[in-house]
Amino acid sequence: MLQLFIANKNYSSWSLRPWLLMRELGIPFTEHLEHFREGSNWEAFRAFSPTGKVPCLTEDGQVIWDSLGITLHLAEHYPQVWPSDPAARSWARCAAAEMHSGFSALRQHCTMNCGIRVALSNMPEALQKDIARIDELWQEGLHRFGGPYLAGAQFSAADAFFAPVVFRIQTYGLIMSAAATAYCQHMLALPGMRQWYEDALQESPREPAHEQEARQAGTWLHDFRRQPA
Amino acid sequence: MLQLFIANKNYSSWSLRPWLLMRELGIPFTEHLEHFREGSNWEAFRAFSPTGKVPCLTEDGQVIWDSLGITLHLAEHYPQVWPSDPAARSWARCAAAEMHSGFSALRQHCTMNCGIRVALSNMPEALQKDIARIDELWQEGLHRFGGPYLAGAQFSAADAFFAPVVFRIQTYGLIMSAAATAYCQHMLALPGMRQWYEDALQESPREPAHEQEARQAGTWLHDFRRQPA
Ligand SMILES: N[C@@H](CCC(=O)N[C@@H](CS)C(=O)NCC(=O)O)C(=O)O
Ligand SMILES: N[C@@H](CCC(=O)N[C@@H](CS)C(=O)NCC(=O)O)C(=O)O
Repeated sequence: MLQLFIANKNYSSWSLRPWLLMRELGIPFTEHLEHFREGSNWEAFRAFSPTGKVPCLTEDGQVIWDSLGITLHLAEHYPQVWPSDPAARSWARCAAAEMHSGFSALRQHCTMNCGIRVALSNMPEALQKDIARIDELWQEGLHRFGGPYLAGAQFSAADAFFAPVVFRIQTYGLIMSAAATAYCQHMLALPGMRQWYEDALQESPREPAHEQEARQAGTWLHDFRRQPA
Repeated sequence: MLQLFIANKNYSSWSLRPWLLMRELGIPFTEHLEHFREGSNWEAFRAFSPTGKVPCLTEDGQVIWDSLGITLHLAEHYPQVWPSDPAARSWARCAAAEMHSGFSALRQHCTMNCGIRVALSNMPEALQKDIARIDELWQEGLHRFGGPYLAGAQFSAADAFFAPVVFRIQTYGLIMSAAATAYCQHMLALPGMRQWYEDALQESPREPAHEQEARQAGTWLHDFRRQPA
């Protein structure tokens, strides 16, 4: 039995990846949501995760950590995690690996906060470069493998790894090419993405550090979240 | 035919991973070394790598980028990239994935520079935390799977992913547990690590940005590199 430990759906970009992957591929799992706390989460998360971070998966007592570590573990048992075509499969793995260690400007300036809409107060060059690279990469995949997913006709881990970027684009109104915009629409309409988004809106606990990061990003245009109790 | 694009052996930590992996597993490849330039490398590296970064692998015209993307591609053809025992295999993949996106304090404060020895001028808390986690993780792997490699009796991608950390520990004289120290000695004695190190010492081109990062880290005790022409 697979149990996935995650944090607040509104904020936790790394949690979204394996959650969406399993949800879209129909891999059965139970979800354990541990809210972010004020200050450090390390102690609380260390109770179940060796890194003190989420996501973390357990399978019959075995602990599998890191969103990409989890994905690679699942791929052994569920080949549909990656595309079946060899060229698409290699491409999808490279794209996911690039996302895993890259795009620090996007992470820093456009923190994931699914339920709000923000007009960015500035657009540093490093952020522009990250966005341009993502757009180029998505266009390449959509064009080469025929869409509507990044690496072909089926949802794969490549899509799961860029799902947090899709929410960031929505939150910060980032301008993308027509092909990338159509891809975002397609992603936002997936059952798993809709469920995650609805759950994020319903969450009432707020975590000050994440809220402040989003405050510093620019002017808030909307907050669609349920108001805190 | 596999061709691997890398940068200066003295500095390029990400390049070391797939280079060492292929070298230690006896996977035949040719090496193409492109030195870092002053200012941006993006244009020069874009000639062969879609991210403008190294490492990048080509196989009969197919481009495979990102050190983890390359590793996963190789694993399809060379099963020895990961341990054969399923528990060790899962663990090794999680450890490599954790390394791939984590340990930013170690990367920032202890830039890889194989040929010098530095006494760090300070030890920020985030750096201490990164080092403690690496030590814990290594001890866990060595203990659980019996060593002398991180995930058992054979060299695997987990070792390749932490090889740059081994050079950083040597350069900055970081204090580790006895088990982790023995692991470093074992790694430094591998033919691939020795060859990389010798090549790094012989490189005479210097890259100002990498040199300055290492200058800022602390007091230089030794510089074993061949003097620039
Ligand atoms: N490389 C890790 C990164 C996980 C990560 O950074 N998770 C964040 C939440 S989205 C976390 O748990 N942070 C804990 C904290 O900031 O205290 C992965 O892919 O799972
Ligand atoms: N996630 C990438 C990171 C590669 C990376 O950052 N490489 C550095 C050199 S070690 C680079 O090419 N930097 C180019 C630059 O800084 O201009 C990978 O794993 O291959």
